This record gives sequence, structure tokens and C-alpha cells, in this order.
Amino acid sequence: MAERDLIEHIRRLAARSTPPWLEVGIGDDAAVARLPGGARIVATCDMVIEGVHFQPGAPPAAIGRKAVARALSDLAAMAARPLCALTAVNFGAQKDTEWMKDLTDALWRACAQFGAPLVGGDIAGSAGPICVTVTAIGLPGPAGIVRRSGARPGDRVCVTGALGGSISGGRHLRFTPRLREAIQLAERFDIHAMIDVSDGLSTDLLHIAEESGVGMELEAEAIPVHPDALAGGGGGDPVRRALEDGEDYELVFCTCERDATEAARTGVLGTPVSIIGRVRRGRRSLIVWPDGRRQTLKATGWEHLKS
Amino acid sequence: MAERDLIEHIRRLAARSTPPWLEVGIGDDAAVARLPGGARIVATCDMVIEGVHFQPGAPPAAIGRKAVARALSDLAAMAARPLCALTAVNFGAQKDTEWMKDLTDALWRACAQFGAPLVGGDIAGSAGPICVTVTAIGLPGPAGIVRRSGARPGDRVCVTGALGGSISGGRHLRFTPRLREAIQLAERFDIHAMIDVSDGLSTDLLHIAEESGVGMELEAEAIPVHPDALAGGGGGDPVRRALEDGEDYELVFCTCERDATEAARTGVLGTPVSIIGRVRRGRRSLIVWPDGRRQTLKATGWEHLKS
Repeated sequence: MAERDLIEHIRRLAARSTPPWLEVGIGDDAAVARLPGGARIVATCDMVIEGVHFQPGAPPAAIGRKAVARALSDLAAMAARPLCALTAVNFGAQKDTEWMKDLTDALWRACAQFGAPLVGGDIAGSAGPICVTVTAIGLPGPAGIVRRSGARPGDRVCVTGALGGSISGGRHLRFTPRLREAIQLAERFDIHAMIDVSDGLSTDLLHIAEESGVGMELEAEAIPVHPDALAGGGGGDPVRRALEDGEDYELVFCTCERDATEAARTGVLGTPVSIIGRVRRGRRSLIVWPDGRRQTLKATGWEHLKS
Repeated sequence: MAERDLIEHIRRLAARSTPPWLEVGIGDDAAVARLPGGARIVATCDMVIEGVHFQPGAPPAAIGRKAVARALSDLAAMAARPLCALTAVNFGAQKDTEWMKDLTDALWRACAQFGAPLVGGDIAGSAGPICVTVTAIGLPGPAGIVRRSGARPGDRVCVTGALGGSISGGRHLRFTPRLREAIQLAERFDIHAMIDVSDGLSTDLLHIAEESGVGMELEAEAIPVHPDALAGGGGGDPVRRALEDGEDYELVFCTCERDATEAARTGVLGTPVSIIGRVRRGRRSLIVWPDGRRQTLKATGWEHLKS
């Protein structure tokens, strides 16, 4: 697969040399750079493309909102707080000035609403699909930065909200990035590792596993399945959809047993928190079914064990 | 024209509310944000699109280099020094993994070469043209930030290097952003206003005029015309081409008579500096021809005076 190949290639480039002021580089949800004087900034950059991240004909207000929310969800995954945003809009074949203004307004509004005022950008037209890039710049939250790489064997795996059916149910165009939830979780608990669910629970949880050098064990029964994954257009097994659909923009995090229990008991700012598994020694990741079957967890769901 | 309409619309949005920590927002080459604690960052975001900023078939190494150099040229225009960069690459219809790696390598290399290590980004594929967005983050240079808005009547207008024929001559794919020159100019002289020539000398100089609330008077004879504008594919009057072609990525700046004279005498880091005009009271901008004719300077060149 070209994308995985390319990401590996980029990681090799990144591994060759890391500037001393770069605390977190490629391989996490956002980069963390230390400025002369000691202040730190958190930065990330994300695209939404017509036909890939939204359907042709989607309203400009929804496109703008999604573009901003996606980038800010990466700041949430680091427990960072937003400072500002920049955007580059390729309007593609869209030539209607009113439509363009509506998209611009939506970007502006979403940036203001989520606490990252728009401070600059670039606009252009071309042939082809619309492509909106948003760069979000933030600051470490009060409890500091949470990375992907700190999960420890024995940790519990937790998730906010419920998963699956985000695209078929239209949530991917309406979600609010879990910025406040992430900061509150990091203030109340000792969060060892965190990521936002954009590619799907299994894929994103395996990112934590890989960066932390651990395995994961998911309990299928404990995964909170969103009603959108039960009904509507998508079809398929609801747990599989919760594992694979992606674009949920919920937070998955690893913390000790006690903190996980407390988070699950109280939730965070009105959003439920579920304990869905635990961190294992070694590199193998599993999903355990209600009938006791254990299957290897793969980035796109699961596979039958060979043995 | 849709783009001008849209830019006006964005400026109106920006004028409605400016966060107190935002020292420079939309309307300059880059934004300047003050962090809690007092540190300042400079940030800008720029796209290059296949068929708009480079021809289909352009080598990936040239595309990557141009994407990075363009964004960093905006930092140069503020006399900022680069810290880091992020990039979002939409590979469009390009599916060749080796080609993708070559573009990635070029982005990586250019970022390292120009002093803004690549710290993050996003990749995706879609139909349509290739689109590369680069966000450059910098810090104020030792002499602070230079804006577009400080030109004063009586200032001289100066430019580095020579202008015109950048696209027909291929310079737009090879240029080095004037980062070091900008910092040295700002350290040696009291630069009142500066911009990089991306849209064309007349257009960009009028940006300074507009932001500074002044007029400009250009001496046609004094404009340094690049050999690429004299020969080769483009055709047309060489001075007109130096005024309009754009993509020169030279620095245009306004400073007092004495500093301008000294800059023109010494150049900067081996690059010549030419005095090409002066700043006038009022909002009217002119170009003066060798035979004494005076014409109104327009964003796309010049127009016959109505009177």
C-alpha cells in the first residue's frame, strides 16, 4: 500500500536527524517545538479533500467546520490547547463566489468557536476537487503534553463517547473536537498515552501500541457502539464498524486501573468514558469476544489466529 | 474578480475581531502571535498546485523545493527567521510511489536546507491535480519584524536582484528565499516596510502602498530587469515584464534616503540592491518613463492617465 510505504519512508527521513528543540516530531498527532526562552508550541496540519473526506455537493459550512475540527482534534489528542489556525483553500473547480464566501465564513466561524482564531492563509483555484488544509497551532495544556508513546503494560484502555457509523450517520461533518475533555482528563488523571480516533479504533490503538512498544487486548463486549453503527446505511457487524469505521474523533487513552475506573465512573464533561481493554507486555495485540475467542487485532479490524 | 472579492471578504471578517495576542494578522506576508510569557511566533501558509504554480510533468524535486521556498519567502518578507515547517501533500492523480517518495525527499531537503526542519504533515491522494501546502513557522529576526504598513512619504523604494521572466526562465523552480538577505537588511538599516515579489512588482508594491496609506512613484528606467525578461519564451516589453511577471521572490522595501543609498552602494550578501522609486504622500501611485511620461501604476502594470 502506497500510503504505508510512504509513511515508513518519511519516518526514516525523520529518524536521521532530530533538531534538539524538537520535543515531539513525526509519529505523533502533532509536533512539539521548544522556542528559545523555553515556551513550547504544538503544531499539526490536516487536509480534507472533496471525494475523500466529504462528498461532492456537501454544504460549504459543513466542509469548513470539518476541516477545522479535524486539525483541532489532533491538538486534543495531545491535551494541548489551541492558539490559532492557518488555512489554505484550493477551491478546485468551484467557481461560485458566494459558495467560496460561505466556505470562508465556515472556516472563520469554526476557528473562533473552537478557540483557534484564523490568522492567515492562502486561497487558489484550479481544476479538480476542493482541498482545504488547516494548520492548527497550540500550546501545551495545564497538565502538559500527552503523547502516543507512554502506554505501559497493565494500563487500562479507555475511550470517550461511542464509535462507528460516523460517516454513514453524518457525524463526521458535525463533531466537536474533544479539546476540553482532553485537557480535563489530563488534569484529573495520569494519562500515559492518547490519540484521537480518525482512522478507526483498531488502527489508532495500534499506533499507541507501536509507539509505546506494547500490545493491546480489547474486550469486544466493552466497546461502546454508536447507534449510527447499528442502524442506517453502513451495514455490517456493529462491533466491526466501531473498530474500523473511523472518523469518530473520540479520544482513546491509556491510564492506570484506578484512574480508568474513576474516569469511567464520572465520565468527562458529560461525555461517558468506557474501559475497553488493557495494555499487554510484548507486541501482540488481541481482541477477545464474548464467547472467549481471542483474535489478533489488525490495523483494519482483526484476523483469525494462525495457531 | 473572485479572488479580490474573496480577499476583501476575508479582510472584513478579520477586521471584526482581533485577538489581543495577535500582533499581525491577515493582510501581511505572515501572522505574528505573542505567546503567554512574551515569545512571538511568525506563521504563514502557502500552496503550490499542478497547472497553476507548476506544469504537469515538472520533476518532483522542483515541486517540493518551490513549495517550501515560497512559504519561506513570506517569512523573509517579515525579516523573520525560520523555525520549522509542516506540509500537507495531496498527490492528486499521481499514484507512483517512487514519484511520491521523490517529492517527500525534496520537501524534506528544502526544509532542512532553508533552516526550517519539517516536523509534521499530512498526505492523501485524490483525483485531480497535485497540491502541496507548506506552513512555515518562524521567530522574529534579531532586528524584529518588518511589516508592509510602515512606508513613509519621502522613503526610497528598493529591490534586491532583478525582476521578470522568472516563469519563462525557470527561476521560479530554483530560487532561494531571501531569508539571510532580509535579516541582514533589517539589522543594518531601518527598513520601514517590506514584501516579497510573488504576484509582480506593481501588485506587491501597491500592497505596501495600501497598507501604509501612501502612494508610490516608480522610475521605469531604474527597475532592474532580469536577462530572463529580455530573451526567451515570454515576449513583451521587458520593463512591463519586470513589473508584472511575478514569482521573482525578491525583496522590495522602503527605507530613508541615506539607508537606501548605502544599501544600493553595498548590496546585501553579494546581491545587488537597486533604488527604483520613492514613497509619495496621498494614495496615487505612478510610474515615470525615461521620456518624462507619468502613468498611474496599477496592480497589473500601468494605465494611461485619464487627464
